[in-house]
Amino acid sequence: MDIVTFGESMVVFTPHTRGPLRHVHTFSKSIGGAEMNLAIALARLGHSTGWFSRLGDDEFGRFILNSVRAEGVDVSRVIIDKESYTGILFKEWYYNFDPNVYYYRKGSAASKICVDDIDENYIKNAKILHITGITPAISESATEAVFKAVEIAKRNKVMISFDPNLRLKLWNIEKARKILLDVAENADIVLPGLNEAKLLIGQDDHHRIADYFLSRGVNLVAIKLGKEGCYLKSKNEEAYVAGYKIEKIEDTVGAGDGFDAGLLAGILRGLPLKECGEIANAIGAMAMLVKGDVEGYPYWEQVMEFMGKKDKIER
Amino acid sequence: MDIVTFGESMVVFTPHTRGPLRHVHTFSKSIGGAEMNLAIALARLGHSTGWFSRLGDDEFGRFILNSVRAEGVDVSRVIIDKESYTGILFKEWYYNFDPNVYYYRKGSAASKICVDDIDENYIKNAKILHITGITPAISESATEAVFKAVEIAKRNKVMISFDPNLRLKLWNIEKARKILLDVAENADIVLPGLNEAKLLIGQDDHHRIADYFLSRGVNLVAIKLGKEGCYLKSKNEEAYVAGYKIEKIEDTVGAGDGFDAGLLAGILRGLPLKECGEIANAIGAMAMLVKGDVEGYPYWEQVMEFMGKKDKIER
Amino acid sequence: MDIVTFGESMVVFTPHTRGPLRHVHTFSKSIGGAEMNLAIALARLGHSTGWFSRLGDDEFGRFILNSVRAEGVDVSRVIIDKESYTGILFKEWYYNFDPNVYYYRKGSAASKICVDDIDENYIKNAKILHITGITPAISESATEAVFKAVEIAKRNKVMISFDPNLRLKLWNIEKARKILLDVAENADIVLPGLNEAKLLIGQDDHHRIADYFLSRGVNLVAIKLGKEGCYLKSKNEEAYVAGYKIEKIEDTVGAGDGFDAGLLAGILRGLPLKECGEIANAIGAMAMLVKGDVEGYPYWEQVMEFMGKKDKIER
Amino acid sequence: MDIVTFGESMVVFTPHTRGPLRHVHTFSKSIGGAEMNLAIALARLGHSTGWFSRLGDDEFGRFILNSVRAEGVDVSRVIIDKESYTGILFKEWYYNFDPNVYYYRKGSAASKICVDDIDENYIKNAKILHITGITPAISESATEAVFKAVEIAKRNKVMISFDPNLRLKLWNIEKARKILLDVAENADIVLPGLNEAKLLIGQDDHHRIADYFLSRGVNLVAIKLGKEGCYLKSKNEEAYVAGYKIEKIEDTVGAGDGFDAGLLAGILRGLPLKECGEIANAIGAMAMLVKGDVEGYPYWEQVMEFMGKKDKIER
Amino acid sequence: MDIVTFGESMVVFTPHTRGPLRHVHTFSKSIGGAEMNLAIALARLGHSTGWFSRLGDDEFGRFILNSVRAEGVDVSRVIIDKESYTGILFKEWYYNFDPNVYYYRKGSAASKICVDDIDENYIKNAKILHITGITPAISESATEAVFKAVEIAKRNKVMISFDPNLRLKLWNIEKARKILLDVAENADIVLPGLNEAKLLIGQDDHHRIADYFLSRGVNLVAIKLGKEGCYLKSKNEEAYVAGYKIEKIEDTVGAGDGFDAGLLAGILRGLPLKECGEIANAIGAMAMLVKGDVEGYPYWEQVMEFMGKKDKIER
Amino acid sequence: MDIVTFGESMVVFTPHTRGPLRHVHTFSKSIGGAEMNLAIALARLGHSTGWFSRLGDDEFGRFILNSVRAEGVDVSRVIIDKESYTGILFKEWYYNFDPNVYYYRKGSAASKICVDDIDENYIKNAKILHITGITPAISESATEAVFKAVEIAKRNKVMISFDPNLRLKLWNIEKARKILLDVAENADIVLPGLNEAKLLIGQDDHHRIADYFLSRGVNLVAIKLGKEGCYLKSKNEEAYVAGYKIEKIEDTVGAGDGFDAGLLAGILRGLPLKECGEIANAIGAMAMLVKGDVEGYPYWEQVMEFMGKKDKIER
Repeated sequence: MDIVTFGESMVVFTPHTRGPLRHVHTFSKSIGGAEMNLAIALARLGHSTGWFSRLGDDEFGRFILNSVRAEGVDVSRVIIDKESYTGILFKEWYYNFDPNVYYYRKGSAASKICVDDIDENYIKNAKILHITGITPAISESATEAVFKAVEIAKRNKVMISFDPNLRLKLWNIEKARKILLDVAENADIVLPGLNEAKLLIGQDDHHRIADYFLSRGVNLVAIKLGKEGCYLKSKNEEAYVAGYKIEKIEDTVGAGDGFDAGLLAGILRGLPLKECGEIANAIGAMAMLVKGDVEGYPYWEQVMEFMGKKDKIER
Repeated sequence: MDIVTFGESMVVFTPHTRGPLRHVHTFSKSIGGAEMNLAIALARLGHSTGWFSRLGDDEFGRFILNSVRAEGVDVSRVIIDKESYTGILFKEWYYNFDPNVYYYRKGSAASKICVDDIDENYIKNAKILHITGITPAISESATEAVFKAVEIAKRNKVMISFDPNLRLKLWNIEKARKILLDVAENADIVLPGLNEAKLLIGQDDHHRIADYFLSRGVNLVAIKLGKEGCYLKSKNEEAYVAGYKIEKIEDTVGAGDGFDAGLLAGILRGLPLKECGEIANAIGAMAMLVKGDVEGYPYWEQVMEFMGKKDKIER
Repeated sequence: MDIVTFGESMVVFTPHTRGPLRHVHTFSKSIGGAEMNLAIALARLGHSTGWFSRLGDDEFGRFILNSVRAEGVDVSRVIIDKESYTGILFKEWYYNFDPNVYYYRKGSAASKICVDDIDENYIKNAKILHITGITPAISESATEAVFKAVEIAKRNKVMISFDPNLRLKLWNIEKARKILLDVAENADIVLPGLNEAKLLIGQDDHHRIADYFLSRGVNLVAIKLGKEGCYLKSKNEEAYVAGYKIEKIEDTVGAGDGFDAGLLAGILRGLPLKECGEIANAIGAMAMLVKGDVEGYPYWEQVMEFMGKKDKIER
Repeated sequence: MDIVTFGESMVVFTPHTRGPLRHVHTFSKSIGGAEMNLAIALARLGHSTGWFSRLGDDEFGRFILNSVRAEGVDVSRVIIDKESYTGILFKEWYYNFDPNVYYYRKGSAASKICVDDIDENYIKNAKILHITGITPAISESATEAVFKAVEIAKRNKVMISFDPNLRLKLWNIEKARKILLDVAENADIVLPGLNEAKLLIGQDDHHRIADYFLSRGVNLVAIKLGKEGCYLKSKNEEAYVAGYKIEKIEDTVGAGDGFDAGLLAGILRGLPLKECGEIANAIGAMAMLVKGDVEGYPYWEQVMEFMGKKDKIER
Repeated sequence: MDIVTFGESMVVFTPHTRGPLRHVHTFSKSIGGAEMNLAIALARLGHSTGWFSRLGDDEFGRFILNSVRAEGVDVSRVIIDKESYTGILFKEWYYNFDPNVYYYRKGSAASKICVDDIDENYIKNAKILHITGITPAISESATEAVFKAVEIAKRNKVMISFDPNLRLKLWNIEKARKILLDVAENADIVLPGLNEAKLLIGQDDHHRIADYFLSRGVNLVAIKLGKEGCYLKSKNEEAYVAGYKIEKIEDTVGAGDGFDAGLLAGILRGLPLKECGEIANAIGAMAMLVKGDVEGYPYWEQVMEFMGKKDKIER
Repeated sequence: MDIVTFGESMVVFTPHTRGPLRHVHTFSKSIGGAEMNLAIALARLGHSTGWFSRLGDDEFGRFILNSVRAEGVDVSRVIIDKESYTGILFKEWYYNFDPNVYYYRKGSAASKICVDDIDENYIKNAKILHITGITPAISESATEAVFKAVEIAKRNKVMISFDPNLRLKLWNIEKARKILLDVAENADIVLPGLNEAKLLIGQDDHHRIADYFLSRGVNLVAIKLGKEGCYLKSKNEEAYVAGYKIEKIEDTVGAGDGFDAGLLAGILRGLPLKECGEIANAIGAMAMLVKGDVEGYPYWEQVMEFMGKKDKIER
C-alpha cells in the first residue's frame, strides 16, 4: 500500500442555492472528510491507498463505505459501529469566502475510534502513514489511536505525513497546540496552512515556520499560502510555487487535502520538489472548480493536461 | 389561548425519490414535531395556540421558529439555547408503509427543556394543555417539565389532553409505561393509537382500552384505529367513526397529530362527540395526502368541504 | 384544413409537489387552453389543424406561439396584441380529484379577441369549425367573434362542433345558458359533459340530454360520462362505450379536449360511431396518464396500440 | 413600533436558469415588495416593524402573509380582500445587469389600498413612517392612502422616510414627478437613487440633488450611487461612503430596500451619519449575494461581521 | 467466489416525469444491466460475486465501474476498451406497464466482449457461473465468449444458471431460439419468464415448460409468472409460490434479475426449494418499489423483514 | 427563402452541476447542431430560413423536429429515417474553458444524409446556401450531398457561405483539409476561426488567412478571433471589430454559429461591413450568456438593445 490514513468521514449536504440555510429548500448529498479525501485523491492519481474509520450501521454509513470503495480505496479495515451513528454536516454559502459548516458529529461512530482499531500490520506495510489534526480533535480515544499509529509507523520506518488541519470548533487552541505539535515533531512531512501555523507556533513568516519544523526533525515542510501558492522547504532545498488563477471557485473545501495528495503523489513518484509543489497547487485548484470535497480531484493524465504538460485529452 | 403545548420540533429532510437513502441524491427541508404539528393544525382551524420548546442558536432553529410563527402560533415562550443544536431527522420510504426515520436529536436543544422553562401564567391562561409522550422520552429534565406542567394545569383547572405517542427508539417500554400511564391518569382526554395502547396496558380491544382510562378518571378516550377510523368513549357516550379511503397516501407522519387537533377543535367548539371524531378522521386523512408533517393540515372551511359539509370552494 | 378553432391559451404552472400552493416551492411551465389542446391532439393524429388567438408581446406569448407551431398546427392567424399580456394559471393538487386552478387572465390578450380577428377565408376552407364555451365566457368581444365564426361556418356549410366547457368562474349560469345553448343549436356536433349538460338544460339523463340537442337540429351528441365512458347518439344511431380503467391518474385537465379530438378524428376518417367513441375514450384516458394538458396526447399509431388494435410498437 | 410601512407585496417567481423565459422550464417561489422588504430587513436588525397591505384571499396571499409574519413583522393591519387576487411577478436574467421583471399585478388586491385602510393609531405610535414611490403608482386610491398616512405622520410628529422608487412601467414621468416630489417635500429623510433623482428633478450632480431636497425642508438626503456607494447630506453634515466590491452578484432586486433599512437602523440607533451609510452599503451588498428580494438580509451581528467590526461568527 | 457473471452494463437515464420523452426536460443517471444487477443483488445478500464486461474509457464507463465496485462486487476482470464507448439507455413511462427503453449501445465496448476476455481461472473458482440470453444477443464475439465460459464451467463442474432474457430488439427469434436453447441445455438452473419460454419452445403451460428443460438435463427450472409469483420444479420437487401484492410499482426493470439473485442465494444457502422461491419473489417485488434497476435490492436482513421472518428493524 | 442549410442536429444533455460526469446526477435536455443553430438564430432575427436533416423515428428525433419548427424555421425537407436513430451528446464542464463533449452519433440518421436528399428547387430558391465543415465529416454520403448542394448553388447563382467548423474527433486533419478547402474555394463567404484556419492552411496571421481565401475567389472572409472580436476582409474593404466583455460565460457552444448568423443577417440587410461584424460579435456574445446552443440567440430588437443602438425595451 502506498498510503494508509484514517479519520472521520461524514455525509455532506450541499445547498442548491446561496444564502442562509433557513431560505434553502433543497440539498444534495455527498461525502467529505480530510483523510478520506486524501485517500481518494491519491487513488485517482494511481496510488494504492487504504482508509479506515468507524461508521454507523445506517444508510449514511453504508453510503460513505460504498463511495470510498467505489474509488478503489481499500476499506477492509473500516469498522461498522452498531452503537453509534454516522456524522453529517451542512455547508452554507452566504457572505464568507469559505462555506459555513454545521456539524452533526458529536458522539458519532468515528469519535469512537480507539487504539484497538489500529492494525499494526496494516500500517507497517504502507509507505506513508498520513495523519491530520482533525482526528485527535474528535475524542480522547481517537487521540490515543493517533499516537499509537504514529508509534507503529516510527518503529517500522514508515514515513509520516501530517496536516495540522486545525479546527477550533472541535477543541481549544491550547489543547490543539500541545497535541498537534507533538504529532508534527514525529512527522517526516508537515503540511500546514499559513494561518494555522501562525496559531500553532506564533509565527507568520513562512521561512520561520519551515525552520521551526525542520529544526525539530521534520524532513519536508510544505506551507499552503492560499491564492499565492505554496512554499516548500526541506533540509537541502526550497521552492516557491505560484498558485493558479481560477475564474470561478465553486467550493474551497477539499482543496487542502487535494494539495496534500498532489504533494505526496510527487514524492511517491520521486519527482523534484518544485514539481511536487506544482502538482499540489494544481490539484488544490482543480478541487475548487467543482462543488463537493472530492468531486474535483483529477486522474493523473487530467492534472497533467491542466498543468499544460500534455495536450488536451480528446474525448 | 385555546391550547398550549410544548415539545421538540426538528427540521425534517424528505427524500426526493423512494428507496434506501444511500441511493437518494436530493432532499427537501421542512419541519416536524408532534406538539408543534398539533399547534399548527389548530391554528389553521381558527384557534389561538401557543407552542414552546428549546431551539439551537442556528439556522435550523431559526427556520423552525419562523415557520411556526408564520402560522400565527404564539412563540413568545420559545427559548433559544446557545449551548445546543437543533435536532433534525431524515425520512426514508422503502418497503414499509410508514417512512423509516433517522434522528439526529441526541443532546439537542429541546432535550434540555426543564422545569424552569414552564411559565405558570402561560399555562393557566390556556383552555387546554396538550402533552405528548415524546416529551418525557427525550430527557429526564423534560420529564420533570411535563409533570410540572401537568401539575399547574390540574391546579388551575386547565383541561389536559394527552397523546401517548410511544417512541421505542427513545426509551424502553418499561420506563415508558410507568411515566405515560402516570400522565394519562392525570389527563382529561387520552388519544392513543391501538398498537401503543396494547403495548402500554396489554389490551387490544378498544372497549377495554377505553374503560381502562375512563376508570382512572379520564373523561374522554379517543382511540385511533388506522384505516378503520376511530372509537370514542366518554362517561356518557360512545361513537365509532369510519375512516376515509385515500387513493394515494403521500406521508403518514403527522396524521395522528392532525387527528388530535381535529378532535380538540371539535371539543373547543362544543360539537357532538361523533362530529368531533369525524373532523379528527378527516384531518388525519388530509394530512396523509401531502408530503410533510404539517403541509396537509386544512383550514376550517377546507375540512368542511372535504367532509362534504359545504360546496366546493370556488377558486 | 381539417379543423379550425380559436380561443385562449395560457401558460400553465404545475407544482412539483402535492398540497396547498403556499407549501410548494417549485413549478414547471407548460401550456394549456381547450381549443389549442384540441388542435394539438388532432395534429398528432395526423390532421391538418389551425388555431388562432391573441397573445401578449411577451415571453409567455412567444412560448405559447412556438409550442403550438412546434406541433405542426397552423398559427398564421395568431395575433400578437402589443397592449395586453398573456394569461397564465397555476394548478394545485390537494384533496380534490381535479386540480384546483388559479387564473391570471383578466384583461388578457385573448380576452381582446374580436370580430375583426375572424378571417372568413380561413374558416370557410376548413372541414370543421370547433367552438368551446370558454371563448364566449372570456369577454363580450370574444362572444361576438364566436357568433361571427358560427355564422360564417353555417353560411359556408362548414361543420360546427361544440364543447360547452362550462366555466362558472368566468360567468354566471344564466348568462352562460343563454349563449351556450344558442351556439349549441347552431352546431352539428355537441360534446357536453354530463354535469354541465345538467346545469345547462336541467336534465341528468343522458338520453334526454341527447334528445334535447337532436331535436334542435344537432346531428350528433357525444356525452362524456367520466369513468363510465361515453354515450353517443345521432339521428340514426346510438352507442355506449365503456371507459378505460387507469391505474394512476396524473392530471385530468385536457382529457375532455382529448376526447373531443378523438371523436372528431374518427368522424374525419369516416369511422363507425362506436369506434369514434372508443378512440375518444382512449385519448381521454391517455391524456390523464401524463401531467400537463397536451403532453399525454398520442400519435395515431400509439392510440391504436393503446386500444390493442395493433401490436406493441418496438422501440 | 419603530417603523410602520405599507404597500404591495407580490409572489416572485425566480427562473432556475438564465435566458429568455420561454426557454426556462422551472421556477422557484418567493416574496418581494419594496416596503415589505424594508420591514423584514429592519426586523432582522432587531427593530419592531409593522407592515400592511391588501392581499387576495388565495394561496399566494396566504403565502405572503405567513412569510412576513414568520420574520416577526407585525401583520395585524393586513387586509384580506375577498374580491381581488394577489399580484405576482416573474424575474428573467438574460443580457441586462438587473433582471427583467414581468408583472401580473393590474387590479391586484394591493391596488385597492385606500384611505380607509390607514389606521391613525397605528401610524402615530410609530417612530418612523416609511413611504415608497411605488404605492402612489399602483392606483388612485393608494395615492390617497399615501397622502393620508403622510398627513397623520406630520400631525403626530412621526418621522417620515421616503424612497422615490420610480417605476415607469406603472405611471408616466409627469404624473410621477408631481406626486413624488410632493411626498418628498413632506419627508424628513429622502433616499433616492442617482438616476431616479435625475429623472425627477433634472439634476445629475448629487450635491445639487441633496441641496434641492434640503432646501425644501428635508432633514437628511441619502443618495444611492450604485457600485460607487452613497452620498449623505443633512443640514450640518455630509459623508461619502464607498461601496463594497462583490465577486458574484446573484440578484440586485432588494438591494435598495436593504440600503434604506440599514440607514434607518443606524438612525434609530443614533449612530453617526457616516456609520449609517456604511451599514446601508453593507446591507445593500449582502442583499445582492443571494437570489431573492429578502433572503440576503442579515441579522445585526452578521452585518457587523461582514463589515469587519466583529470576529467571524463561530458556527 | 460464489458467483461469476459477465455481460453489458449501461448508464440508465430515468425521466423525472411520465410521458413521451420529447416532453421530459430532466433525467437522472443510474446503472443497469442484467448480469451486473444480479451480481449486485447477490453481493447485498452477503455473497461474494464477480462481474466483468468491457467498458469505454469515458466518464460513463468509469461511473459503471465505480458503482459496481462500490457494492463490493469484484471488478478485477473488467476491461477498459479504449476504442469503444459505453452504452447508455433512456427509460420512458407512458401508457405501457413496463417502461419503454431507448438504447444507444450499437458497437459499444461491451459488444466487443470476446473469448480472450474469458479467464479460465476466474470461472473455475466460482461456485456458479450465471449467463443471460442478452450477452449472446449483442454480438458474434460475445456469443463465442458465452460458449467458451459455459464450456469452462462444464469442464470444471461449476454450476451454470441461465436466464434466457429474450430481447427481440437485439436479434430475431429464430437466431435467439437456436442459441438460447443450446445454452439452456448446458445449464443446471434455467430461469425463464412465462412469455419468453412460450416464444422459445412454443409452450405456455408452465408444467410443460419445466418438463421440457428437465428432460434435457437441467436440474432446476424456475419460471417467473409475473404477479402470480413463480413455479419451481426440480427432478424431485416442485413448488408454486404466490407473488407479493405491491401498492405502487415504481419500475419493473431489474425485478427479474432480483428474482434470479434471490433464488440463487437460497440455493447457495441450501434452503428448501419453496423458500428459495419465496426469497426470489420477495426480492423481485422489492426491486419494483424503487426507481432504477438495482436501487431496490435489499440486504439479507431487509428481505427477511419484508417477508415477515423477522421483526421490523429498529432504525 | 433567405437561407437554406442542412446538417446533423442532436439532443444535447446539459449537466446540472460542474465536474466529471460520473459525479453529475441530473441532466437537462435541449438541442444543438451548427447548421440548425444558424437557421434558428437567423429566424429570430427576422429571416426566412429552411433547415433539413435526417432524424430517427424516435422521441429524440421528434423533439428536434418540433423544436426547430417551433422557431418558425421551414422543416418541410426533413427526412425521418426509419432505420436509424437520432444522435445525442453530453456536455461536461470541468477544468477546460469550453465544455467537453461526449457524442453518441456514430451511424446516426443524419450520417445517412445523401445526394438524394438534396432538392434542387429548394436550394435554388434561396438567397444563401450555408454549409459547415461538420456535414462532410460525418459520412461519405453526407460529403457527396454537400458537393451536390454546392454545385446546385453555384449553377443557380445562390450565394454560398461556409464555416469550416473543423471537428478532429470526426475525421483527421489531412482528409478534413482536402475537403474543407475544396468547399471553401467554392464559397462566397468563408467564416473560419483563427485556430482552425491555422490548422487548415498553416497560417496564423489573420491578414494572410483572409488573403489566402480571397485569392481563391472568395468574396468575404470573416475570421473569429475569440475574445478579441473579429477581422473581416472583402475585396474592397476590411474591418476589425472588438469583442464584447462578458462577466459570466455560461456556455461557449453555439457562439460561432450565432456569429455567422449575425454576419449573414447584416449582409442580407445590406449593412456596412463593420456593422455586420458588430452584429456578429454581439450575437456570439449573447449566445454565451445562456446555457444551451440556441437559447441565448436574440430577436433583432434585442440585439439592437444589447449593442446600445436602441433604448432598453420596457417589459
